[in-house]
Amino acid sequence: MTTVAYLGPAGTFTEEALWRFADSGCFPDEVTPLPVNSSAEALDAVRAGDADYACVAIENSVDGAVTLTFDSLAEDGVQIYRETDIEVAFSIMVRPGTQEVRTFSTHPVARQQVRGWVAEHLPDVEFIAASSNAAAAQAVAEGRIDAAAAPRRAAELFGLHTLADGVADVSGARTRFVLVGRPGRPTPRTGSDRTAVVFTLPNRPGSLVAALTEFALRGLDMTRIESRPTRTGLGTYRFHVDLIGHIDDDPVAEALRALYLHCEQLSYLGSWPTLEVVSHTDTHRLAEAAAWVDAARKGHHSC
Amino acid sequence: MTTVAYLGPAGTFTEEALWRFADSGCFPDEVTPLPVNSSAEALDAVRAGDADYACVAIENSVDGAVTLTFDSLAEDGVQIYRETDIEVAFSIMVRPGTQEVRTFSTHPVARQQVRGWVAEHLPDVEFIAASSNAAAAQAVAEGRIDAAAAPRRAAELFGLHTLADGVADVSGARTRFVLVGRPGRPTPRTGSDRTAVVFTLPNRPGSLVAALTEFALRGLDMTRIESRPTRTGLGTYRFHVDLIGHIDDDPVAEALRALYLHCEQLSYLGSWPTLEVVSHTDTHRLAEAAAWVDAARKGHHSC
Repeated sequence: MTTVAYLGPAGTFTEEALWRFADSGCFPDEVTPLPVNSSAEALDAVRAGDADYACVAIENSVDGAVTLTFDSLAEDGVQIYRETDIEVAFSIMVRPGTQEVRTFSTHPVARQQVRGWVAEHLPDVEFIAASSNAAAAQAVAEGRIDAAAAPRRAAELFGLHTLADGVADVSGARTRFVLVGRPGRPTPRTGSDRTAVVFTLPNRPGSLVAALTEFALRGLDMTRIESRPTRTGLGTYRFHVDLIGHIDDDPVAEALRALYLHCEQLSYLGSWPTLEVVSHTDTHRLAEAAAWVDAARKGHHSC
Repeated sequence: MTTVAYLGPAGTFTEEALWRFADSGCFPDEVTPLPVNSSAEALDAVRAGDADYACVAIENSVDGAVTLTFDSLAEDGVQIYRETDIEVAFSIMVRPGTQEVRTFSTHPVARQQVRGWVAEHLPDVEFIAASSNAAAAQAVAEGRIDAAAAPRRAAELFGLHTLADGVADVSGARTRFVLVGRPGRPTPRTGSDRTAVVFTLPNRPGSLVAALTEFALRGLDMTRIESRPTRTGLGTYRFHVDLIGHIDDDPVAEALRALYLHCEQLSYLGSWPTLEVVSHTDTHRLAEAAAWVDAARKGHHSC
């Protein structure tokens, strides 16, 4: 039995992502979902051994990085094994028979994505933050809140009536989720992979660019970088970097060996198959380049 | 008369930052503060000509970038002229005579900074998000909320009683504020300056590192970088970069000319005196290096 911690209760997009991972064969046996109150709690459940995996939201195409997840991943004891992403559109739900909507609740990230709709249709409503959008739906079902923005499935689970479906200020908004376990062998290389690391650097001129240059020198593509505060003062950061490539790709391994020498601290967050269309690091060309050098060494060079 | 838009009402840390700018002689004449509901609204007031300047929070040593400010700065029509930073510690305030605290409100960023204190002292309280911490204090004064976390001055302004002062989960937390106006001549070079740009790049392998290498090649220090979503899909970003140096420093101007050639879009967000101890780009050494080459050209080289 595999226990997977997720931002609950049932009915969140995170639960949907969890079942996607299950359906794609990520778990060796039956899954027991363990609902918790935040992505940080889900990761701590893995660290504490209360869960085998955590399914957590990591970024959104409208709101950017989920900083709580990033900050919690930077602590030791976890590794990313998979990713998936889900198109997020919300249903606005109330108890059947509701006449007047005075209070409105959802997760703060979800709120960013329905702000326009709410401003137009519920202009004077009071916003109350919820730990998840399904928790907001539950609060509506229990009569503590008048309306919630949550996945359509939450309305079904909690017996609510929907005022609107498919609500999203930016259409096509997507959220990426990752499956996180304890450190172990990375997911095998597929040729279309992502590797994530987090590091701190000495406070010296040019240290950040010098560190990043190790990727460029080896033809690797860095797809994103985030500066997160170390909490020791303004102007000191921890850097989160995503690369295209797998740690079993030689150029990635070489770049990380070189990066290590620049860092005060370097943590490996995992390598896993990416769903993104990889128009970035051309791993085939990198392999061709390695083969070309090998051929030259062996005297098989075609000139 | 100079109108300055800020996250109101009176009593916010942003108002305190505004008066710091005024006290340090940033404005040519008397200041009229214009309270608004968010940093984005403050910047829009500048764009619309309703305010001469906006004073907005840009980052915090605990919670990181204020993403609403970053996203709004990325739109055209504004430029940063100054920075200041303030140590943030909160007072927890109630109406005099309050017996029971059931609801608690503050700005969501402030909430991150008092989360530990609230969990310990008000474990069962319901959180209601406010547009600013002084707005939360005002809601307490009006009887709509039981308790607020806000600057001590807000308790004085709204006649509230404080349960605790100096509340901050991480002591020494600081927030950086910037003074933003319409595009114009940058604040004159001081030798200890910061320059900010925001750009998008073609979706090509290595484009980000290639762009950033332009700074390293010229001995410039990049102090922070943020990836913000372009909202067109997962995996496409707008990059915000802070450099140490002024656009009137030749290496900065050269690097930005070179950066321009990499970018789909490049916006200049300003150059201004930094308060940070600059242990980064050594502008004196850069000037010495330029003088050394000039001397060699003129045949005055000391060998």
